[in-house]
Amino acid sequence: MSDVVLIGAGRVATSLGLAIIEKGHRVTKVYSRTAASASRLSARLGCDAGTDLNTLPQDADVYIVAVSDAALPDIASQTPFPDDKLCLHTAGSVTIDVFPQRLKFCGVLYPMQTFSMDRLVRMDDVPCFVEARTDAGMERLQAFASTLSHRVYRLSGNDRRYLHLGAVFACNFANHCYAIAGEIYRRHGIPFDALLPLIDETARKVHQMSPVSGQSGPAVRGDADVMEAQLSLLDAEPVWAEVYRLMSRDIGRMRDEAFAARRAGGSEPEK
Amino acid sequence: MSDVVLIGAGRVATSLGLAIIEKGHRVTKVYSRTAASASRLSARLGCDAGTDLNTLPQDADVYIVAVSDAALPDIASQTPFPDDKLCLHTAGSVTIDVFPQRLKFCGVLYPMQTFSMDRLVRMDDVPCFVEARTDAGMERLQAFASTLSHRVYRLSGNDRRYLHLGAVFACNFANHCYAIAGEIYRRHGIPFDALLPLIDETARKVHQMSPVSGQSGPAVRGDADVMEAQLSLLDAEPVWAEVYRLMSRDIGRMRDEAFAARRAGGSEPEK
Repeated sequence: MSDVVLIGAGRVATSLGLAIIEKGHRVTKVYSRTAASASRLSARLGCDAGTDLNTLPQDADVYIVAVSDAALPDIASQTPFPDDKLCLHTAGSVTIDVFPQRLKFCGVLYPMQTFSMDRLVRMDDVPCFVEARTDAGMERLQAFASTLSHRVYRLSGNDRRYLHLGAVFACNFANHCYAIAGEIYRRHGIPFDALLPLIDETARKVHQMSPVSGQSGPAVRGDADVMEAQLSLLDAEPVWAEVYRLMSRDIGRMRDEAFAARRAGGSEPEK
Repeated sequence: MSDVVLIGAGRVATSLGLAIIEKGHRVTKVYSRTAASASRLSARLGCDAGTDLNTLPQDADVYIVAVSDAALPDIASQTPFPDDKLCLHTAGSVTIDVFPQRLKFCGVLYPMQTFSMDRLVRMDDVPCFVEARTDAGMERLQAFASTLSHRVYRLSGNDRRYLHLGAVFACNFANHCYAIAGEIYRRHGIPFDALLPLIDETARKVHQMSPVSGQSGPAVRGDADVMEAQLSLLDAEPVWAEVYRLMSRDIGRMRDEAFAARRAGGSEPEK
């Protein structure tokens, strides 16, 4: 079991911190930019809080930097991490090389999930993608990460960028599609809850079939009249109308490509 | 229990037909444009099949037209439906007035769900939105629809257009976000399954909080560096890049509007 120092007190730091103590490790100190946020998380984790990274304890086993991507490079490069300890960041799109070269045991532990302050996510099931600078570092990192999640995968920093890009589409942009629908409903007095069975089934469906083959609706049917009628409802919202046009066209394109690929593969195209 | 004639043999007709017989009604005949598709569904439902709507039996209790929106107006207006029976279509964006005025018991039963041939959806939980031309028609329609789903709601044809528009965003476009992510992963050798915990949590989350307040990722954090880096990965895919830009900007806009609304409401804005 490890002693862990957490740098950051946001959504990811909070979820990780709770998982870390749940698994029997100890969080010895939480750092954050403000004393208020550091204390808020340290109180939940039962440990010290700090704001000055120059006071970083040198005797922990693992240091985790879970801050915004914008703040990460400065913190990773300027914090006095001990040379011989596991130093990790949690960012999907930031290179391992934000850590100085002297840190042979630095690495990345990217938990691919959407975290919120008000909602506890069980870390056990969160796919964690790990990268380390050295083999020895990877050994320590995998040993540690495996105590938090049973889905730990090695992935290069280059591939992690595409991993994160896909996550932004499948999570953030899909969620924004819910948000647009919700705003349309709000304006017309329709409760958001009416969408939940549809949202749930859309998510469940891709456990069984690919999103392209499971697609439904006017765009994949090529139903021009409905698309035109729906676009006219978006006259006052040009951004949503443009999203509607782009998505509909791209749904048609992917349907046609999948159809062509099935023909080329010699299998009977679906009706 | 009712005798039902189904016109259409696609995804919606199949799901409805199976639900109808499961609930103890009888489907007496299935019509479709081609004999092959009509027989395929009639075999599953244990009934006759037909292609010529001039042979429409006049003694059923309910007639359901579940065809593409493009084919619906002609079929609804030209089929010799009996004057005094329940005649329904299932389209979100098509008016009740595709049925001729002589049909006092016509209506709309729009089951808001994403249907696939290979995946059975339990109709009981599918929200069904109903509209009828007359009070007497509404009475019959609600009685019938309630046997199929325990979530039956009355909704005007005008509101149903917005309901359907929201469904296209929350289902078809969200699903297309999964498809884009899946295609990015395929090109980089990352299995689509890696996304499933994220997709599931994104869908589950909106049962508890609004999509705007549950949003995460670079756009809602205003993380310009990450957004720029991710856009550069999409250089070869201008449509996806444009979707990325539009969605990210709109996520920021909705975050700001929600923030302003909370301030105006006098409550403490979230950190």
